[in-house]
This record gives sequence, structure tokens and C-alpha cells, in this order.
Amino acid sequence: MASPANAVPCEIRDPALADAGRRRIDNAFPSLPVLQAVRKVFIRSRPLQEVRIAACLPVTADTAQLLITLRDGGAHVALCAANPIATQDDIASALVRDFGLSVFAMQGEGAADQARRRMAVLASRPRILMDEGCLLLNSLLENDPQQLESISGATEETTNGVMRLKAAQKSGRLPLPVIALNDAMTKHFFAGRYGIGQSAVDGILRATNILMAGMNVVVAGYGWCGKGVAMRARGHGANVIVTEIDPVKALEAIMDGFRVMPMSEAVALCDVVITVTGNKHVLHREHFEKMRDGAIVCNPDSFHVEVDVEALSRLASTRRTVRETVEEFRLRDGRRVFVLEASRLWSAGGHMSSEAPASVTDMSCASHAMAVEYLVREHRTLEKRVYAVPAQIDREVARIKIEAMGYRIDRLNVEQEKYLAAWPEAN
Amino acid sequence: MASPANAVPCEIRDPALADAGRRRIDNAFPSLPVLQAVRKVFIRSRPLQEVRIAACLPVTADTAQLLITLRDGGAHVALCAANPIATQDDIASALVRDFGLSVFAMQGEGAADQARRRMAVLASRPRILMDEGCLLLNSLLENDPQQLESISGATEETTNGVMRLKAAQKSGRLPLPVIALNDAMTKHFFAGRYGIGQSAVDGILRATNILMAGMNVVVAGYGWCGKGVAMRARGHGANVIVTEIDPVKALEAIMDGFRVMPMSEAVALCDVVITVTGNKHVLHREHFEKMRDGAIVCNPDSFHVEVDVEALSRLASTRRTVRETVEEFRLRDGRRVFVLEASRLWSAGGHMSSEAPASVTDMSCASHAMAVEYLVREHRTLEKRVYAVPAQIDREVARIKIEAMGYRIDRLNVEQEKYLAAWPEAN
Amino acid sequence: MASPANAVPCEIRDPALADAGRRRIDNAFPSLPVLQAVRKVFIRSRPLQEVRIAACLPVTADTAQLLITLRDGGAHVALCAANPIATQDDIASALVRDFGLSVFAMQGEGAADQARRRMAVLASRPRILMDEGCLLLNSLLENDPQQLESISGATEETTNGVMRLKAAQKSGRLPLPVIALNDAMTKHFFAGRYGIGQSAVDGILRATNILMAGMNVVVAGYGWCGKGVAMRARGHGANVIVTEIDPVKALEAIMDGFRVMPMSEAVALCDVVITVTGNKHVLHREHFEKMRDGAIVCNPDSFHVEVDVEALSRLASTRRTVRETVEEFRLRDGRRVFVLEASRLWSAGGHMSSEAPASVTDMSCASHAMAVEYLVREHRTLEKRVYAVPAQIDREVARIKIEAMGYRIDRLNVEQEKYLAAWPEAN
Amino acid sequence: MASPANAVPCEIRDPALADAGRRRIDNAFPSLPVLQAVRKVFIRSRPLQEVRIAACLPVTADTAQLLITLRDGGAHVALCAANPIATQDDIASALVRDFGLSVFAMQGEGAADQARRRMAVLASRPRILMDEGCLLLNSLLENDPQQLESISGATEETTNGVMRLKAAQKSGRLPLPVIALNDAMTKHFFAGRYGIGQSAVDGILRATNILMAGMNVVVAGYGWCGKGVAMRARGHGANVIVTEIDPVKALEAIMDGFRVMPMSEAVALCDVVITVTGNKHVLHREHFEKMRDGAIVCNPDSFHVEVDVEALSRLASTRRTVRETVEEFRLRDGRRVFVLEASRLWSAGGHMSSEAPASVTDMSCASHAMAVEYLVREHRTLEKRVYAVPAQIDREVARIKIEAMGYRIDRLNVEQEKYLAAWPEAN
Repeated sequence: MASPANAVPCEIRDPALADAGRRRIDNAFPSLPVLQAVRKVFIRSRPLQEVRIAACLPVTADTAQLLITLRDGGAHVALCAANPIATQDDIASALVRDFGLSVFAMQGEGAADQARRRMAVLASRPRILMDEGCLLLNSLLENDPQQLESISGATEETTNGVMRLKAAQKSGRLPLPVIALNDAMTKHFFAGRYGIGQSAVDGILRATNILMAGMNVVVAGYGWCGKGVAMRARGHGANVIVTEIDPVKALEAIMDGFRVMPMSEAVALCDVVITVTGNKHVLHREHFEKMRDGAIVCNPDSFHVEVDVEALSRLASTRRTVRETVEEFRLRDGRRVFVLEASRLWSAGGHMSSEAPASVTDMSCASHAMAVEYLVREHRTLEKRVYAVPAQIDREVARIKIEAMGYRIDRLNVEQEKYLAAWPEAN
Repeated sequence: MASPANAVPCEIRDPALADAGRRRIDNAFPSLPVLQAVRKVFIRSRPLQEVRIAACLPVTADTAQLLITLRDGGAHVALCAANPIATQDDIASALVRDFGLSVFAMQGEGAADQARRRMAVLASRPRILMDEGCLLLNSLLENDPQQLESISGATEETTNGVMRLKAAQKSGRLPLPVIALNDAMTKHFFAGRYGIGQSAVDGILRATNILMAGMNVVVAGYGWCGKGVAMRARGHGANVIVTEIDPVKALEAIMDGFRVMPMSEAVALCDVVITVTGNKHVLHREHFEKMRDGAIVCNPDSFHVEVDVEALSRLASTRRTVRETVEEFRLRDGRRVFVLEASRLWSAGGHMSSEAPASVTDMSCASHAMAVEYLVREHRTLEKRVYAVPAQIDREVARIKIEAMGYRIDRLNVEQEKYLAAWPEAN
Repeated sequence: MASPANAVPCEIRDPALADAGRRRIDNAFPSLPVLQAVRKVFIRSRPLQEVRIAACLPVTADTAQLLITLRDGGAHVALCAANPIATQDDIASALVRDFGLSVFAMQGEGAADQARRRMAVLASRPRILMDEGCLLLNSLLENDPQQLESISGATEETTNGVMRLKAAQKSGRLPLPVIALNDAMTKHFFAGRYGIGQSAVDGILRATNILMAGMNVVVAGYGWCGKGVAMRARGHGANVIVTEIDPVKALEAIMDGFRVMPMSEAVALCDVVITVTGNKHVLHREHFEKMRDGAIVCNPDSFHVEVDVEALSRLASTRRTVRETVEEFRLRDGRRVFVLEASRLWSAGGHMSSEAPASVTDMSCASHAMAVEYLVREHRTLEKRVYAVPAQIDREVARIKIEAMGYRIDRLNVEQEKYLAAWPEAN
Repeated sequence: MASPANAVPCEIRDPALADAGRRRIDNAFPSLPVLQAVRKVFIRSRPLQEVRIAACLPVTADTAQLLITLRDGGAHVALCAANPIATQDDIASALVRDFGLSVFAMQGEGAADQARRRMAVLASRPRILMDEGCLLLNSLLENDPQQLESISGATEETTNGVMRLKAAQKSGRLPLPVIALNDAMTKHFFAGRYGIGQSAVDGILRATNILMAGMNVVVAGYGWCGKGVAMRARGHGANVIVTEIDPVKALEAIMDGFRVMPMSEAVALCDVVITVTGNKHVLHREHFEKMRDGAIVCNPDSFHVEVDVEALSRLASTRRTVRETVEEFRLRDGRRVFVLEASRLWSAGGHMSSEAPASVTDMSCASHAMAVEYLVREHRTLEKRVYAVPAQIDREVARIKIEAMGYRIDRLNVEQEKYLAAWPEAN
């Protein structure tokens, strides 16, 4: 349904859903104390006064909180859907009716509609883009590169999108400053280590009903996520084995008390395998051939990149769904391998998700809101580069978070500031 | 005693000590498997053939292993003492007699002798300096700046020295490329987190005979060392409280399950306080006034930087030594504070020490040997800057270490290399 | 529907459900390796040949596995429902059609039907009772005490039932030997510590979507379950506070690194409170009055024994269900308390449950099967007392379990057996 | 030197040492808060008024505190040495001069003197014995069995002694009630799990200077001590392997996340092996033949019971002391095994030791003092049996300890007491 005459432009499914959407938005706020704190500051100081923003993000309650915060800072926001399957029509309706956002999104819309709606959003002549997978940027480059001149900068949510932007920067074709949101320090350890760590282990328990204590759990990869998963699996009493290709990370895993071995040996011992490497076919044919009977394989993505499910399928004599998210592959010699569609179990990090623990969402949104404010304030000093989230935003988000949790910390006194300041000039 | 006619130039206490020194050198080697592996490669490929090296380091068994390794790589090495109190005369003698090093060092020598011996070492016209606290470099700058032109580069062991070199670089006065050894990745987590973590807790137990389980242990600072100390104290059953000034680190400590609070509150709860901040007077008068009776304060340095022992002393009515490394301060209201001279308990990291666990020494020495080889091989490509230890050295040291521990890890296959390589060029 | 002429006597809902029931029974077996091992032995040695058994247990897939195992040992089994709400009619049908059991149970039957069906089961003239809550025993005592003379012994599942039996024993009125299944050593630490530990924490995460790392989690009670819950909450990064009334357990909690304090102080700090004391109103009015805003209270039973939900309700201005198992109580000053109906989240232990991790069920069933075999074999040596599960059953269950997990352990050699045997006769 | 005319009877080395002994006794008190609390109660209520006590214990500062506490409760105490090597002559002198104890002990006395001095102590016609290894009891049985009639009871410190007493009880020859001090609940987990756990790991670090993180540490036995050692080794980052002969304990180790395997496999992986089984030759020839090069073996006793050092010696081509408490055995194929004389490193528990953490001593002494008071008060109700330390003493010791640590715990309210009391009478 298109927007009525006396309202913001919009295309939404059904304005009558606004009440339901509003309830869900209101319910979510108490669990987002950091974003709320940012919002209070924005309401007071209006740092985005009259700034037009175009956002291409999942149309969910979490995104709603983020955009309302920007609006409360003075911005005019237009929104289309990064992922139409995730679009929640009731949220869209509430954003239009109660918060004056310009929303162009309907659940399940096709690619052509999506493309058209991105252009509708860009027609608001934004100064700031909030992008996911470079969708808005590519639309501009293809259809209206001119418009880029009036844009101060963009934020980008996804790792994938950031990789492309960095490639563009390298070849000198990046047309504006971009803040890569996946690069916030709080994100690495907060969303990665603690968020994914909990979600992965918890997701496996929900899907399988195993008792994890005493099991051999293999974690492929000892980056931020791998560290988190290994820590939580151990926290459940598992005996954790780590596989790695980087000797420095492997050494760290050993020093943390984990066993380290090649995957081809680990599969013979594993009760559970969780891959968090970002690499391709970390589990492949050779591994399935040696895998212990009854092993549970946790496949973090639906595209079968890390786990070569095709190869497993070719080895199997039967394949059947035994629980909602669990497939059983029975190999010709009778061994069984259970594959969990982990993408449906936990948020793979890197972008906002209603599945992630609320406090992860909270800090991501707060960080995002402050990054937009930073672009507006500092764009004149920025080059056409991909920037990490500035350290002062990390610090500020962390500061608000620990305050919200009821903690206080020390501050440097004058003597200490002097002492630390003296060092760089030493000699 | 000066060197005899037909030998390398040297000034050592007593050649007759060479047998004793040799035994200690031979005994140490089995516990240094990584350095041994590097040495084997050096013996085969002689990468330092005819390279003259001047070293100003502690004259100990560990340093001996390092320098013998360089000699086996083809180098001519001259050595003087960075810290004459630590000089072991038997080691010096063995290095001269059995390994042909030019050693100028006697235990307990005074400042004038030290300065003279540094010049003796520099008289060997070295191509590479191995420096501690910039002692060799400053000697050159003061006495023979000309000679710098013939020097390819230097290594620097201490954090303090590196700070000065960076200050010099900033002001454009750094005369040669330097590799800062305290900046190796393996050092951060290996020597810092695991090494200091174990040494600090272990040192406290040795000094005090407390049962750490169930105690409130306050760790000031949650950097690499603080993380290690907190982890090991918890590993002993302590209830750990962290104090911080950086909200990001404070948040990390909270998420790791520790309590976080200002020091002024923590002191009222503490059984033990360990400061690993690198900052000044982290414990000062205000803290001692509120400190719990019987608290044990771990002072990591002998210069009373982190702990304001003077202030404590002024508050105390009596001060006495109750065990070898423990001083009791009795305050006027009867409360007692015990101060451990931790500098005598554990190696504060950042440089080689015979007190550190052997495996920390092993990796530090191996890293150092490879850094020297790197300077010789790559000096033409280096600018007059302070460099971190190159990542490939970190990786190589870690690779040898985990092999020596009996571990094997995965390698990328062709498909995976392609997959990872594809990303940067994406789009 | 009553049983047809040429079959075992039975009263079941619908024989046509037998296929569905059979599938579920077959699916469950692979996850019960210990029970399977017992079953294999029973098939070979037929220790229950012609023994008639009357069971009053939940009619579920787990119970089915247990009773089929007994049947395979030679027994004739008659079954009625301990808890008619839990009765699964398809399982009942499959047990009758495919396994020849005499089942008298229909989902949702009333109290009168239940009582009648217990008598139908007892009409089989059993030698062994498998009881829950003393239901069969009480039926006999009320209706046919004579029959007790022909009964060799009974097993009892519930803590509640065991308490009554012990009271009867004390007053000299226990009419037969009983094995108390809740007293198996493997049950204490396996089902209690590891099972409940995981289920409680996991249940909270499912119900609330909180990130547990960094939260203050209060565990009331440091018995087997409390130890398990505290261990797993810490394993998720929580900062755990324990409350206790027993100083020995409190000291153990302190030595394990937890904070210990009275509940009235803990409530002011808590993000989550979990009560596993078995005591009444561990959380009462005084506590709710001081409770931190947003606290999550985990109520382990539906009868509001440990948590005085009535008192909370009286303090609240509003009460509403915010998620399936979560109720929000808003107090008059605006603070919110969330109560989780944990009974619906996790199995409170003490009896078999399809919700418990399969391996807990597996060991409980195996233990139960071996206890029945023990009663048959040893009843002549037993007095009319309540017995714990014999230690050799614990050992045998543990032995099979670790074998099934792929582990092997040491055995005493002759010299060692001699050495240990020498001690008792020492002097 | 014999006692002067106007003093208590005594035989001590040198009265002039009393000042030194007094200083050490005074220094020790502040670290024994639980014993101090008991002492305060004793001073007030004098529960041992005019009770004569004969003690055969190590004559050390710790024992001194215990006996002074009894004296302050009104007792007359006579003391001889359980272990003359440990006798500290200065303590003996101070006990005589300043506390009026009758001491018969000199450092290094021979067996004949010892026996004679035991009789001297028994000549005081004690009502209570405090025994170690049944030394006093055997002296009485051999020399003056008559006297047993006037003795109310005894305490026994050592596991060994308790075993003999239980054998005597079994054969009906135990002549008096005995409280077995090694059976206190606080001892099991406090002295065993936490005390030995810390001491074993700490002792290894002191002896060897290894970095324990990342090492394979094998713990033989998963009783109280084994659990403690495994927990602390893991707390230092080790990868712990447990060996067991009891499947229930093995299963517990597995569920705690440890690897379990036969010792013959574990030795091929081990960096360190610690035996805490109480069994004989847990490490024997077969194990040494497969042991990993460089393995460190921790031998908990000096009698080579658990570790068959003789067998190792026969396999070795050379054997030499490399550090104070470390022997190197070089096997014929070049592998090295290092044996630590752990008896010199840590207190093996079971009796008071000045080497144990002070808080372990504190609780042992307090428990002992209360056990003596219990014997005096309750002896009429006691049979000629070996008793564990009564639960109320455990609770009281724990209560005082947690109070001394600054903790408070909950108490049952009236409603809760009623609720709990209702259960036993249930039915």
C-alpha cells in the first residue's frame, strides 16, 4: 500500500498492523539500555538535526529502535529492506504511523520490487547511507552516480560488504568515506567471543538435547568466535579440541589448555564439530570418511561453504530430517552423521539479528547510531576510505554499557595522567 | 683479567670458572627446544657468516644460549653487561674459552668500567647491535656517532628502551632501523599472559604460604599481564576483582565473569592486590587508609612506581621484614599491610631472565635470534624506524614451538587457498 | 479400548497408534547405549525369566525402553500410568502390540480410572513392583494387603515417595524391601550436578535470550544441583553468588571461588536467581522488596514452594505473560521481576523425563533395570528396609557408560590388590 | 636437660631457646583465626578444667598453638614427639617456660629415648590421649594396659593409625573411643582438595620452573586429592589426563571435562605425572618403558610406594640430582625421566605440617581442639569405636572460618524450619 497524501512517502503492507508493531517496539526498549542512553543524549542535543538518512537494513524491531534513535536526534529517515524475508510488516507500519519514518518494504517482496524501493529511498536525497551488502551504494553507482557528491558518508554492516568496499578502495574507486561496523572492538569480543560463544553452544543443546559434559567437542578455528565457542563448550564440561592453520593461534589454543590436532585426526574422536573459520570446506569428504559414528556437525551457514554437505550427501546411503534443524546422514558402513543447520540456530554475527542476545544487539545499535553521528560531525575530515569504528565510540559504548550493568571504574588522577603523558616524550 | 695474546679480546673475572659455566650452559639447552631448532638451521645455512655483532645484555646462561646460536650461524659476537649485578662470571669465562666470544664483563663492576667495556665491545666494529635500554646506542651517539653509518640495525629488549627509540623516531633523530623485541605477538600472550600469569601467582604463594582458594584477589589492570594474573588467580580458586581505567577493558573483564570496581572500593575487600598497570601510584595513600587488615600488596617493581610505598610508610607506625621478601607495615589503628617485593619474585617480562619459566626464555631467545638474522638479510629494505618483530617470525617461532610440544596442525589445501585469495579481489 | 480375546489384557486409547509409537521407541534406542548394553546381557542370560512385574510409571518412550529391556530379560510386565497427563497413547499401543506388555493407561484419565487401572495391573500377581510416589504400594495396602506376602520387593522413583517409605520403615510398618532409585551415586552427580546444571542454565537462555556472561547469577543452595548450576553459570561467564544455610557447604562454595552472602543482600545485586534448595520460600516478600530491577527469578517447581509467588503477586501492580514461560511482575515503584516457570523448562531430577538429556535418562533406566534384577536375585537376603542402589550397580552402570563413550581405564594388578587388601588387616 | 625443682616435669634441649620459640609462636597466631576463636571461647568457659591430656605430636609451632588452646581451656598437657626429626627445640622450651606444658622431646632423639619419653608423658595419668600413629596407645598396651580404664578417649591424626584402630575395633580389641581426625568433612575437601591441590601444583613449579600452561599433566587417582590436583593443574592451563581404577570416579572425571585413559597410554603423552592414589606402584616398569622423554614424575612419598623408583633406577643408565629436589634418570635409549621428591615439596595431608598453607593448619587444629572438648564432654555416651569427627564440629569450624573470612550466610526462619521438619514424619 502506498502512502496517503498527508503523510511521509511509504510502501507498506498494511497500516492496520501498526498497533501490533508498536507493542513490539515498546517491549524491546527495556532490554536496550545502551541505545536508550544514546537516545537520551540525542534528544537533548539533536546532533542530526535535519540530516536526511537512507537506510537499507532488515526491517525488524531492533532496526526500528536504531532508526527511532536517529530520528530522535533530528534526522529524517527513509528505510528499505536489506532482506525481504526478514521484513516484519507490523514494524514497518508502526514506524510510518507513529515515528514518521518513510518505509518502503513488504515481507517477501521480489528482487525487482526491492530494487525499485531502494531507488525510492534514495529519492529522499540522503546525506548519509546506512548500508548492508553495499546494496544502496551499488544502486547509486548503477543508476545515479551523480548523487554521490551530496553524500557525506556511509555505514556498512556486513563483512562481505566491507570486503568489497576495501577492494574498491584499493583500486581507487571508493566514492565516499565508509565506516565498517563489523570492525568495532566491542564487536570482536562482545558479539564474537561472548555472543557467538553462547549462541553456538546453546543452539546445539536446543537442537539435540545432548548432555555436553564429557563430550569431545571439536572447534575449527581459534579466532574471536572460535575462542568464544571453545570457552563455552568447556564451560559445559566438554573436552575441547581445536583445529587451526595458523601456528600462533594454535599455540594460543594449546596454552589455553586445549588439545590441538589436524581435523583428519579430530574427526575420529569428535562427538560434536563446530566450524567457525570463515574458510571453505573445512569439513570435506576425507573427514566424513573417518568421522566417529553419531557425530554432530554444526554448519554455520546455509550455503554449505565451511561444511561440504554435498560431499557428505554423496557418501550417504540415506538422508532424513530427524528433528526440526537436524539432518541425519547414514553412511554406507552404518555410521551416522548429524548435521545441524546452525544458520537457523544462531546469529552468525556481523549484523543485527533478533536472534542474537539482546545485549549484543544493544551495543551494535548504539555503536551504529554513534557512527552515523560521527559521519555527520566529522565528514569534512574524512577521506574516501573504509574506516573502523573510531576507538572513542568503542570506549563510549563500553562506558555506557558497564554503567548500565551497575559497575563503576577508576579514572586517572592528575599525577597519573602526567606520568603516562611523560613517556612518549621520554629521552 | 684481560685476554691472552692468542685469543679473542676479553675482560673477565677468572678463566678458571669456565668449566662451571660450561656445565650450566650445557644443562640449559635441553629446556630450550625452539632455540635449538633455530640453531640447527643456522648451523646448516650459516646466515650470519662473518657478521660482527655487539651485544649489551645480561651475562647469563640464557643469553649464552642465544649468542652461541648466533655464533653457530657464522657471527662474531662481542658482549658486555647490561646489568653488572646479574653478570655470571663463570658463564663469561665459558663463552670466551669454549665458544670464542669476546666478553667484557665482571660481576659487580661500577658505572665507569661498564662504560669503558661498552666502548671495547663497540671497537669490534659491529654491523648489528643487540641492545638493552639503548646502552650501546647512547654510547655510540656520545662517543662515536660516525660509526653508526656502518651499522645495519639493532634489536632492543626493554619497553623502556623502545619508548625512547620511538620518541627519537618521532622527532626524526633515530639513526638506524630497530626491531622492538617486546612487541612480538608471541611475547604478548606467551610471556605476558601465560608467563607473568603463572609467575605472579606462584611468587605470591612462595612468599606467603597462603591458600589462595576463596580469597578476594584484586588485579589492577586488564592488559595482557592482568588477564594472565586474573586467569591464574581464578585457577587457584580465588574470587578475582579487576580495576581498570579503560571502559573497553573493564567490559571485557566483566564479560569474563570478574567483578569490576574502583580501587578505593576494592581495597576494603582485598586479601591480595596485584598491580600490573604500568601506571604510577595505582595504590596510594587513600587506598592504604581503607585497606583491609592483613592485605597482601604485590609490588611489581623495585622503584615503587605502581605502589606508593613511601605513602604507606608514612602511615605506618612500624615496618619490619617478616619473611625474606615480605615487609609488614602496621598502621596506627592496628591494621597490617604486607608488601611483597615482587620484583624479586617474578620476572616482570620484557626481557630475558633466568627466573622466567624456561619456555618463555626459549621463545624470546629464538625470536631474538631470528630478528638478528632478519636485520642482516633485510636491512637494505628497512627505514630508520622502530619495527615490531615481523609476523613471519612470530609464526615461525610458534610453528617450531608447537612441533616441539608434539602437536601438528592443519594446512590449507589448494581449494581453500584459492577461496581465501579470492576475497580481497572480490567485486 | 479393552484388550482383544487372544492378547494380553490391556486398556489403551487406540491400537491404531501402535505404528507411530513404535517409530518413536525405535528412534530413542540409539541414544541409550547403556540401557542397550544391559538389554544385550539380559537377552543372553534371561535373569528375569517368568518374573511378573507391575509398574506404575509415566507411559513415555523412555519408560518403554526400560520395560522392553525387562521383558527381554524374561519378565512379564504390566504397566499403568503414574501421571496420566504425561501418558503417550501411541507408546502404550506399541507396547501392547509389538512387545506384549499389559498396559492400562489412557492420556488424561481421571483419578477413579487411575485407581481402577492400578488394581488391574496388580491383578497380574506381580513379584516385583516398580513404583512412583508409592501409588502401587498404597493401592495394595488399602485393597489387598494379603498380596504383599508374595512380593519380593519394589523400586521407588521419587524423592517424595522415598521419604514416606523411610517414615514407614522408622515406625516399623514398611512391608517389603525397597530400592530407592533417587539415591544412586551416579544419580547424584550425573543427573543432579551435570544434568540439572546444564538444563537450568540452558532453560533460562531459551526462555529469555539474555547474554549470561557478565551477569550476577545467584544460586540458592550448594548441594549437588546447586553445584551444577553454579558451575555451568560460571561456564557461561556469569559472576555467581551462592546463598546457603549450611556453613560447610557455604565454605565449599567460597573455596570454589564464589561469593557467598545472605539472600537479602544478594537480591540487590542479582540479574538472575535460581533456587535449588528443596526448602520453602527461599525467596519471599522481604527479598522481592529489595530485588534489583529486571531480575529474573527461576522457579523450579509449579507449586510455588521455593519461590513465594503469591507474595510477589501481592506486591505487584501488574502481572503479565511476556514470553511463553516468562511472567513479568511490575512492582509499585516501577521495578520489574521476571518469573520463569522452570518446571516447564527443565526436569527437576528425581525421575525420568523426556526433557532430560538422553544420557541422563539412559543411566537412570539402566540403573533401574539392574535394580529390578538385583531384587529378583537377592530378595532373600534383604530386610524390609529402604536400600540405596547397591554400589556395584553404580559401578557397573558407570563402567558401561564410559565404555560406550569410548574410554578405557586401569585395572588393579595382583600386586596392587594385595597391597590394598593388606590394609584392613593391618596392626 | 631435666626440669628444675619448682617447675613442671620436662626433658628439653635448652631452656635458653625459649625466647626464640616464643617469638615464633606469637608470630603464628594471627594466621590461625579459627583456632583463635576457639581459644577465646575456651578461655571464657574453661571446658577442660583440670583435665589431664597426654599428646604425642610433632613438636612444632602449629602443635604449640593447639596445645596452648587446650591449656587455656583449663587442661594440663604433657607432650612428647611423634617425629623427633621434626622436633623444634625452641618451641619445646617456650612451651615449658611460658605456657607451663610438660614437654619431653629433643630434636633427633633415638627410638629408646622416644619410648621412654612416651612413658614419661603417660605418667601424668591423662584422661585424654592425642595420638599419632597409635604411638601412645601401643605404649600403654605394652606397658600398662591397666591405665586404659582411666582414659576417656583418644584422638588419632594419621590415616595409617586410623586403619589400625579400625582393624582393632573389627576384632573387638579397641580399648577406648577414638575420634579419627582424618575423617573430618572439612578435612576432605579443605585440606585434601584445596590444600593438596594447591601444594602439589605449586611444589612442582618451584622445583622445576616449567610453564605448566599447555602441558599434558597426568593425575593418577580422582579422589579428594586427585580432584584438587586436576582442578589446579587445569587452573594453570594444563591439559589434564586422569587415570582411575574405579569407573564411577572415572566417569566423574570425564564429566568434568578431563581425558581418561589407562596409565600405559597416558605415559606416552605426559609432560608431568602426579600420583595421588594411595596405591602401590601406580607407576611401574612397564610405564617407564613407554614414558615420554623429559617427563616429570611427582612422587608423593619418600618410601617409593606409589612410584616404583627402584624399577626406574634399574632401567636407567645414569641417575643424578639436577636440582635440589629433582633427580634425573637417563634411560638407555636416551630418554630422560625427572623424579621430584614431592614429600619434600608438599604436605601429604592427613596430619598437621608447617608446610601446609596456614589456613589448612588453622582448621585442622581447631577441629582437633573441639574433638578433645567433645571427648571430655560426651565420653560417657561413646562406645569403644572409631568415630568420625562429629558433624556439628565440622559445621562449627566452617562457621567460624567463613566468619573470619568476612562472610555471612542465611539462617532458616521459623516457617522453613517447620517445612523441613515436616518431611521426616511425612505419611
